[in-house]
Amino acid sequence: MPRLWGQEASGNCYKVKLLASHLGVPLEWVRIDVTKGESRTPEFLAMSPAGQVPLLRGDDGSFLAESGAILWYLGQGTTFVPPDKLAAARMLQWMFFEQYRVEPNIATSRYWIHLLNAPERFAAQIAAKRDPGLAALAVMESHLAHADGFPGGALSLADIALYGYVHCAPEGGFALDGFPRIRAWIARVAGTPGHIGMHEPLRAPARYLEAVAR
Amino acid sequence: MPRLWGQEASGNCYKVKLLASHLGVPLEWVRIDVTKGESRTPEFLAMSPAGQVPLLRGDDGSFLAESGAILWYLGQGTTFVPPDKLAAARMLQWMFFEQYRVEPNIATSRYWIHLLNAPERFAAQIAAKRDPGLAALAVMESHLAHADGFPGGALSLADIALYGYVHCAPEGGFALDGFPRIRAWIARVAGTPGHIGMHEPLRAPARYLEAVAR
Repeated sequence: MPRLWGQEASGNCYKVKLLASHLGVPLEWVRIDVTKGESRTPEFLAMSPAGQVPLLRGDDGSFLAESGAILWYLGQGTTFVPPDKLAAARMLQWMFFEQYRVEPNIATSRYWIHLLNAPERFAAQIAAKRDPGLAALAVMESHLAHADGFPGGALSLADIALYGYVHCAPEGGFALDGFPRIRAWIARVAGTPGHIGMHEPLRAPARYLEAVAR
Repeated sequence: MPRLWGQEASGNCYKVKLLASHLGVPLEWVRIDVTKGESRTPEFLAMSPAGQVPLLRGDDGSFLAESGAILWYLGQGTTFVPPDKLAAARMLQWMFFEQYRVEPNIATSRYWIHLLNAPERFAAQIAAKRDPGLAALAVMESHLAHADGFPGGALSLADIALYGYVHCAPEGGFALDGFPRIRAWIARVAGTPGHIGMHEPLRAPARYLEAVAR
């Protein structure tokens, strides 16, 4: 069974759990606490040179890091990757957007405010993330004026990737009141059969073999 | 012919030109100057909501942003994407690593120092990027102890993506003297037939149809 080193409160780790839930992929979840330095031990760095979670170990014993790459590995050949070449590239466009525009602003603010509970200590850093974080949300809101998701159509890896941190953006100080289309999209993702919440445990697998056989 | 809006001195744009040169993809290059706000005009934002270059317009008139997604779009089905599922995911791992660890540190420092020529004005920001930039280079150097590239083997989209900014890291204040394996890898990439330099114009296409037919 593939093993995943992850932290429950991390949106990057949650993305993998959420996709695994949709696909019914069996995953052995190994809990790791980044805030206690557990991703910086020599043992962990030997598996993940950049000290990153999530980290996947496949059945062949090799490791894969970066949430986007893990999503791709688990999701290719399923309905979560559009079969059309351009649509698949557009999905990747949103996944790179998420890691470059959403995560570094919204997830880091949430880390300082919600996980470390130290908004005063990181006030300057949080302030610097505000405008680029809002700009990323505005780009998403604008896209949703003419699409029901990212890129739109069947739920894709990019929907999963963006949901990871956008659904909990308020925990990073980014209220979503001014983004009604994003809120509707969040409700759509959360209402899709197979969905689980960030703090729910992964349920027993069921549909994985069916999904990979498609 | 696909049209690419790009800035010559941008490593993100160079990546696309470099892959196009290898594959012999015909590209109409439309020069745009980000430092003069040309990616922030209403006309440009209508094509690229996040105001990003490179921006590709395909023959069907639709747009694709994010260098990694454009590389994927042009490169899939060629030798630049490993056919093995895990190897392809590992290639994407390095492409996400590049956008999360290399670009935000090394490219932004280079932007302030080399393109804006304003190292004093951005001294605090440049200082903040130093340690994470060096850490990213250290991860690459460590990987190259047991591989000849990213992920290793045939030149991949990740080699192209990482080359974009790492080959000119010294322009961002990141000397590569302490990274002999990275320097050897740079020489390997630059010595591959089809390579062109950052400031060389794209030559006439030749091998594209051959490549996509593989």
